[in-house]
Amino acid sequence: MDETSLIRDYLRPLATHPGALSLKDDAALLSPAQGKDWVLTQDSLSAGVHFFPDDPLDSVAKKLLRVNLSDLAAKGATPVGYLLSCFWPHATHKKDILKFIQGLKADIHIFGGALLGGDTVYHDGPLAFTLTAIGEVPGGTMLTRSGARAGDAIYVSGTIGDAYLGLSLRRHPETYRFLKKAARDRLLQCYHLPQPQLLLGAALRGVASASMDISDGLALDLSRLIEASGAGAMLYLEKVPFSAEALTCLEHKSVSAHDLISGGDDYRLLFTAPNDKNEELLAISCNTNVSLARIGEITTGGGLHILDKNGKEVRLKKQGFVHGGK
Amino acid sequence: MDETSLIRDYLRPLATHPGALSLKDDAALLSPAQGKDWVLTQDSLSAGVHFFPDDPLDSVAKKLLRVNLSDLAAKGATPVGYLLSCFWPHATHKKDILKFIQGLKADIHIFGGALLGGDTVYHDGPLAFTLTAIGEVPGGTMLTRSGARAGDAIYVSGTIGDAYLGLSLRRHPETYRFLKKAARDRLLQCYHLPQPQLLLGAALRGVASASMDISDGLALDLSRLIEASGAGAMLYLEKVPFSAEALTCLEHKSVSAHDLISGGDDYRLLFTAPNDKNEELLAISCNTNVSLARIGEITTGGGLHILDKNGKEVRLKKQGFVHGGK
Repeated sequence: MDETSLIRDYLRPLATHPGALSLKDDAALLSPAQGKDWVLTQDSLSAGVHFFPDDPLDSVAKKLLRVNLSDLAAKGATPVGYLLSCFWPHATHKKDILKFIQGLKADIHIFGGALLGGDTVYHDGPLAFTLTAIGEVPGGTMLTRSGARAGDAIYVSGTIGDAYLGLSLRRHPETYRFLKKAARDRLLQCYHLPQPQLLLGAALRGVASASMDISDGLALDLSRLIEASGAGAMLYLEKVPFSAEALTCLEHKSVSAHDLISGGDDYRLLFTAPNDKNEELLAISCNTNVSLARIGEITTGGGLHILDKNGKEVRLKKQGFVHGGK
Repeated sequence: MDETSLIRDYLRPLATHPGALSLKDDAALLSPAQGKDWVLTQDSLSAGVHFFPDDPLDSVAKKLLRVNLSDLAAKGATPVGYLLSCFWPHATHKKDILKFIQGLKADIHIFGGALLGGDTVYHDGPLAFTLTAIGEVPGGTMLTRSGARAGDAIYVSGTIGDAYLGLSLRRHPETYRFLKKAARDRLLQCYHLPQPQLLLGAALRGVASASMDISDGLALDLSRLIEASGAGAMLYLEKVPFSAEALTCLEHKSVSAHDLISGGDDYRLLFTAPNDKNEELLAISCNTNVSLARIGEITTGGGLHILDKNGKEVRLKKQGFVHGGK
């Protein structure tokens, strides 16, 4: 499938922004609205590292878009547009390319933004993708990792560790035979199709003191947040919200709470807020239909301390998950 | 080499823009200056397709940056920043990664802009890179491909076909034994290190009616420009500027003029301008120290016609060069 017909027949319909110039030019043109700041992020996926080579490509396209949208969400930004580079193995079938575009189209329809440009490469290597996402926020309101202050409460959205279980289940299905099919499907879904928390992120502007998305495990990402903020943190393991499916897995000892807070791919929001924002956060949780759990407090320094239900400090074997394992 | 130390020790010094947040956050923050438009482009390179697997990585980094800067130049834009994704094979040595960063740093120093973010992947595949470049232009002045009108003159900057010869020389050095070493070196340099015409592009704002960079061959790219403009073109083969090295190769019949206007990787600017801009273009050529050649005229329609010195129409076997052979 040559690049010209790929663009003309399949990608151009996704280029709904006038500044995309129908993907007919060397570059896209954007005129930022007055008083808005721009938020830029770029995440890449490679087969065998971030997804399985036999994953359906509509699902891979959605994951690619969603991991980038999760970064925008964590910054409180609204999606504007995307630049996409695809590295296709030489033997890629047209139907697989079209399946990828179908997934991308469906998700752009859900989350907004428009395709603005990119590149297509046919190479002697694995499927790989890079997406740059551009979002906007009202000037001066972007949430950062660095604003957490001693005394702030620490929150996460949704439940933690489901995507880790989904990945583990995908790799070792025999270990999870005790789960019902619906439970297995939900965990696999959490791994394959993260839900970017765009509405929650936007609602947190002016409320959260610091915010990031959890991609490499709650423990590692919290340690990054406090490092960026020049602070410390106490995390209460028993306050970390686990799903019904995760609790079943904990009961069957197929996983530990340590694993769940060290696993990757959650794509939930991790944020901090002063104590007087409690009621506002309750309203945000109700309005966005996202559960929020208070899991700890920011301290003046001394790194991250994780305490169990008896107040005893927990040491993790492995604090977080880094794709590719070097 | 893990991503954390790579970022901390080597990439952070390139993140000189305050909005890069020292590469410590999920995303970059940019506040576009009032009255400016933004120009966005993204090009990717993969080993074995766009460069040779044994090319030194400082040179590959420069090519990656420059092919993107060439797009900004063609739009009249000034570089602001970059997002960079690197796919490293698992066995990549630290010294190669540092060599890549060294090349990137040297070129960012020359051309401006700052590293704003990106991603690092270690995978079971070839070296591959995606770069997104963000540039700016005064509002409403971005040059596009679509503004050429019948009667406009067609220009190219510099000489055509040198990068094609450099690639050919790299592949078949025995064919070019008649060239002196300095000539061979210059042609190889044209292939490995294109010169983005940023000053020329900026000077062409308000002067050129349409502009693009030549990446896939003069003939193919001119056909794209007229298609985007809804026009036709006459191209006079004898007016196409060839370098002294290319003329020597033509004399030795190791290459034809057809090859030179169909070869890729020129990264010269191809633009059109009304006839009354002639003197202004002469001044621009002098001020930017870039030679400009008038090679044809835009017509009302009927596609691209290439004429030889006798006014006879030339048919190309292959109009242009598409990387990867699709």
